[in-house]
Amino acid sequence: MKNTIGNSLTVTLFGESHGKAIGAVIDGMPSGIAVDDEYIASQLTRRRPQDALSTPRQEKDEYTILSGVFEGKTTGTPICITIPNADTHSSDYGEMQYKMRPSHADFTANCRYNGFQDYRGGGHFSGRITAALVAAAACVMPALAKKGICVNTNILNIAGETQEEKWKEKILAAKADGDSVGGTLQTVVIGVPAGVGEPWFDTVEGMLSHAIFSVPAVKGIEFGLGFDFADKTGIEANDQMYVDSDTVKCYTNNNGGVLGGITNGMPIVFNAVIKPTPTIGKEQKTVDINTMQNTTLAARGRHDPCIVHRAAVVVESVTALVVADMLTQKFGTDWLAK
Amino acid sequence: MKNTIGNSLTVTLFGESHGKAIGAVIDGMPSGIAVDDEYIASQLTRRRPQDALSTPRQEKDEYTILSGVFEGKTTGTPICITIPNADTHSSDYGEMQYKMRPSHADFTANCRYNGFQDYRGGGHFSGRITAALVAAAACVMPALAKKGICVNTNILNIAGETQEEKWKEKILAAKADGDSVGGTLQTVVIGVPAGVGEPWFDTVEGMLSHAIFSVPAVKGIEFGLGFDFADKTGIEANDQMYVDSDTVKCYTNNNGGVLGGITNGMPIVFNAVIKPTPTIGKEQKTVDINTMQNTTLAARGRHDPCIVHRAAVVVESVTALVVADMLTQKFGTDWLAK
Amino acid sequence: MKNTIGNSLTVTLFGESHGKAIGAVIDGMPSGIAVDDEYIASQLTRRRPQDALSTPRQEKDEYTILSGVFEGKTTGTPICITIPNADTHSSDYGEMQYKMRPSHADFTANCRYNGFQDYRGGGHFSGRITAALVAAAACVMPALAKKGICVNTNILNIAGETQEEKWKEKILAAKADGDSVGGTLQTVVIGVPAGVGEPWFDTVEGMLSHAIFSVPAVKGIEFGLGFDFADKTGIEANDQMYVDSDTVKCYTNNNGGVLGGITNGMPIVFNAVIKPTPTIGKEQKTVDINTMQNTTLAARGRHDPCIVHRAAVVVESVTALVVADMLTQKFGTDWLAK
Amino acid sequence: MKNTIGNSLTVTLFGESHGKAIGAVIDGMPSGIAVDDEYIASQLTRRRPQDALSTPRQEKDEYTILSGVFEGKTTGTPICITIPNADTHSSDYGEMQYKMRPSHADFTANCRYNGFQDYRGGGHFSGRITAALVAAAACVMPALAKKGICVNTNILNIAGETQEEKWKEKILAAKADGDSVGGTLQTVVIGVPAGVGEPWFDTVEGMLSHAIFSVPAVKGIEFGLGFDFADKTGIEANDQMYVDSDTVKCYTNNNGGVLGGITNGMPIVFNAVIKPTPTIGKEQKTVDINTMQNTTLAARGRHDPCIVHRAAVVVESVTALVVADMLTQKFGTDWLAK
Repeated sequence: MKNTIGNSLTVTLFGESHGKAIGAVIDGMPSGIAVDDEYIASQLTRRRPQDALSTPRQEKDEYTILSGVFEGKTTGTPICITIPNADTHSSDYGEMQYKMRPSHADFTANCRYNGFQDYRGGGHFSGRITAALVAAAACVMPALAKKGICVNTNILNIAGETQEEKWKEKILAAKADGDSVGGTLQTVVIGVPAGVGEPWFDTVEGMLSHAIFSVPAVKGIEFGLGFDFADKTGIEANDQMYVDSDTVKCYTNNNGGVLGGITNGMPIVFNAVIKPTPTIGKEQKTVDINTMQNTTLAARGRHDPCIVHRAAVVVESVTALVVADMLTQKFGTDWLAK
Repeated sequence: MKNTIGNSLTVTLFGESHGKAIGAVIDGMPSGIAVDDEYIASQLTRRRPQDALSTPRQEKDEYTILSGVFEGKTTGTPICITIPNADTHSSDYGEMQYKMRPSHADFTANCRYNGFQDYRGGGHFSGRITAALVAAAACVMPALAKKGICVNTNILNIAGETQEEKWKEKILAAKADGDSVGGTLQTVVIGVPAGVGEPWFDTVEGMLSHAIFSVPAVKGIEFGLGFDFADKTGIEANDQMYVDSDTVKCYTNNNGGVLGGITNGMPIVFNAVIKPTPTIGKEQKTVDINTMQNTTLAARGRHDPCIVHRAAVVVESVTALVVADMLTQKFGTDWLAK
Repeated sequence: MKNTIGNSLTVTLFGESHGKAIGAVIDGMPSGIAVDDEYIASQLTRRRPQDALSTPRQEKDEYTILSGVFEGKTTGTPICITIPNADTHSSDYGEMQYKMRPSHADFTANCRYNGFQDYRGGGHFSGRITAALVAAAACVMPALAKKGICVNTNILNIAGETQEEKWKEKILAAKADGDSVGGTLQTVVIGVPAGVGEPWFDTVEGMLSHAIFSVPAVKGIEFGLGFDFADKTGIEANDQMYVDSDTVKCYTNNNGGVLGGITNGMPIVFNAVIKPTPTIGKEQKTVDINTMQNTTLAARGRHDPCIVHRAAVVVESVTALVVADMLTQKFGTDWLAK
Repeated sequence: MKNTIGNSLTVTLFGESHGKAIGAVIDGMPSGIAVDDEYIASQLTRRRPQDALSTPRQEKDEYTILSGVFEGKTTGTPICITIPNADTHSSDYGEMQYKMRPSHADFTANCRYNGFQDYRGGGHFSGRITAALVAAAACVMPALAKKGICVNTNILNIAGETQEEKWKEKILAAKADGDSVGGTLQTVVIGVPAGVGEPWFDTVEGMLSHAIFSVPAVKGIEFGLGFDFADKTGIEANDQMYVDSDTVKCYTNNNGGVLGGITNGMPIVFNAVIKPTPTIGKEQKTVDINTMQNTTLAARGRHDPCIVHRAAVVVESVTALVVADMLTQKFGTDWLAK
């Protein structure tokens, strides 16, 4: 069990929210791929809190590439990207060293790390760590795009609303109320050829879900019709097929582009559900693990009333990394650079 | 990308539906664990088609343990279990060598294996392969139970019905109609201590979902409230906490026992959706990949109108293997035997 | 720590010397490769004891391919090969359940497996297991040869002699004396292109040595000049270079074809030392682990006075598997079939 | 093929000699282990060039721990250590961009990375990268020592001489001559319990050799008697055994503490040969890969006439990491902290 995703093209995450820096090491990148700083910055901006819908924290995501890039291109050796931590108000979190935030990782981190974890700002569990993930993926995505493979994650709904106007209202209302809301993201990957994946056990669904569940607050994933398959019949659900100028296509894409764990050439489509941000201003019952007494907690500090919109670029990034890894395994280590 | 699941305790599957045998190799089993043949047989029986709800195929699951067991106990070396294939009607499938069954793996297998796959009866993609998975898990589950860890998978609904009487009717109706139905399985794992899992990337959800998507026809997985989180608020969704005689518990288990990717000591709860069996008697549009012409297919042969009930023991088995692997990594290779 | 070698093209070994069968699962073989039964048989024959230089045991190596091959060609799914155990004289080994053979794995197996190992005939540590390894590699080697990659392992010396006449005499003399002899094998791999391998940590030397040390009795490995580098100077040892019609070559091959962990296009050359067979007829001091008393042992049964000559095909097989795996990782999963 | 070593306790290396920084990420460290800065510094000092026997380069090894340590103790999350590069004379290397140093990795790096590698100062192949490896191991070794496990690497010989006085003379003579010398290092590990390792394929020898061959210039490894086994007989070579107050011991340790790939409780002992530093002042025949013409090269710049003595701490460090990883796999992720 490691902090690494991927087999041939891997990303290892490190860092804590209030430590010196967060970062990622990308290994298995082929040599000769131009690193597009503007693109990296633009992806980081998508993740950064920007308006009243998010935390008022001012996160700076000034990254440094320590290795693996020479004269603007990848060398083929591991790329270490670091992002220093700056706007940290550690004092906001003093109370939370022992008071466990319900539905957050405070308690499980304490169990996993025997009390030695850096508890400030969520430590290694902070959503901030995803900035490194986004930066890492942004080194890969332009090369994927050149191969005709594009990944896009969009908001399907937030707080039960599908229209932007309405869900923005719901977010602001939750914020005013000291509460938070969840939602659903839809990801579409186009351009992956048919024949990628394994039946047992490295299915496309399995590889993607393994990674996507690392995105903080994701609690479910479904491909194509997903849970709606449960009350469909075979004839309703099956993707019937036809020949379209030497290519086999489906009339529908109920299976989200994957059959038997393997791509069928249709777009890969999946939904991921993001739970409401657990850190809220409302008073909740919880425990103090120092005194082992019941207590209550109304979180102070600067929190996101919703992270669904910010999580979109993270889900997109993780998806791109998994797809790039699977294709690199199939087509060889230099495939992405060809 | 391999046909192996697990890191410390691994299972590798092999075999095709109409080949000489299917089987599994379990590696990483500690020595000294009694192999319970009755339990293995009883689990295999749960998977086997038994009544009008399933295929009339008579599958015999007579397994042989070729290695890794000596005088009734595991030796600590790899256990190879084989199950010979017997009741095969290969002629039923002749038509299907080139006619792709919609929503089945026929076409993706052909892409993945360049036309060299054993197409008879679904080959390596056949649900029959799961017998080996069930047998493998049945070597592990009694030892897990001795540790107080129990895995149970139950039918949540089939064809939109939650009552056994009603869903049985729906299955029989689908069968009569040459159609099929899907459903949802719920799995509960009790006894896993708090602190198991990793935030990035080997979360409990990620590890389980990686494996569960290999169970044929699974198209979605959700933990706790899952997709219902999307329209909950934080205060509705959060699992508030309390102290119960030196243990920290939650009033609710909306997160299904996992926070930040790590177990919190509550039962692990997840749902998996099973799509309707894709092989149906109704005529469907499809392609002949030999002639690359459009055609139609009304599947003959003996098929399951529903596999949800048969899949329960498979999901249970896979879950047990993942849990045993995660705990073996955490507590050491001999943990299961202690 | 697993009984598997390889990352993209893997082999998992199972079986005990006196169990039902030994075998191997090959995963990651591309589809469409013809399986050459004659070649497999011929490689197994090279490993089998055949004359006065070896054990009088009559090992039959009749293998069965249970999966992964259809109509004579690989399907791309896991290949399970089994070889039943036949000519077993378990009674020969009764005394050895508790009396540990010096320098054999009896004692370490007992520590590793807590006394539950199948001790008969060396169990999972028996040289017999290498038959499965040879059979597995024999599925891969003809495809490697088509790529122009050939692996050859030859006897460099046995019992300090380099001439066949002389070392045969030494083996027979050792046999007559109830003793045994060791020797050195040299392996040459031609046809591997320059640029294969990683500096940290999957060097060609590291990948090969990792696998070669599994061949029973191997205790050292050296590339090129190997240990003779210790008293050379740079100018004596360096492989100076020249251009030979658009190819870069070296005047010498002191580095055995690998620099910085990566192939340079020259033949890969390494030596592996095989210790004298530990099971000998001479009386040795040892322990009875049942009574925990000192005792002596003069091994009965049918043993090899030398395994160097029989090990050659095993080293060759393991080498071929590692080379095929490294190239598959680099050039993609279907490379071997192209 | 990745720049990572280890399964449960892993180290990933990154960096180039003349880039911004080199470094390592350690994953799988248990929480609560005190980080001993003095020890890390002292190990780094052992590796640093210090006197006339080494390069006159002044390497500063001021490391920063970016993550994974909080209030002086490991948190259990990945530890990223970086060491900035300072005393770099890139101009020394201009000539070497295209002129390949014989027996160095210049040419193989160019093949592996298609000409995009950072060629300055050896780039990712520089011995300098080992500073990060030494720092990483220095986080682990004090915890190993508390468990009674000590690793020590000593010089066995340099330039054929075993006495320090004499080999120092030989190094200085080689330096004066624009040449270089090699040697042999011996490593001893005490305190590893019997029963660690696997027969196929993660033998102790295989795991160690896999890693040790990453130490620049290592070209061979042998356990116990190693290549001397080739002309020993069984009775001469076998390690006879006895009972020593409830422990099984051997009268000799010809097998270097490993039998059947598994530790027997005796010290693990192996030798590794280090070839003469390939970069020498003497004129050598080589190629210019830009013009693809034959040329000659007499290396300028500041080079080590011998790296055997500096490599000792590197071999020691790598050994400690492998031993810690194997024990962590066997005894569980928190074992090192218990």
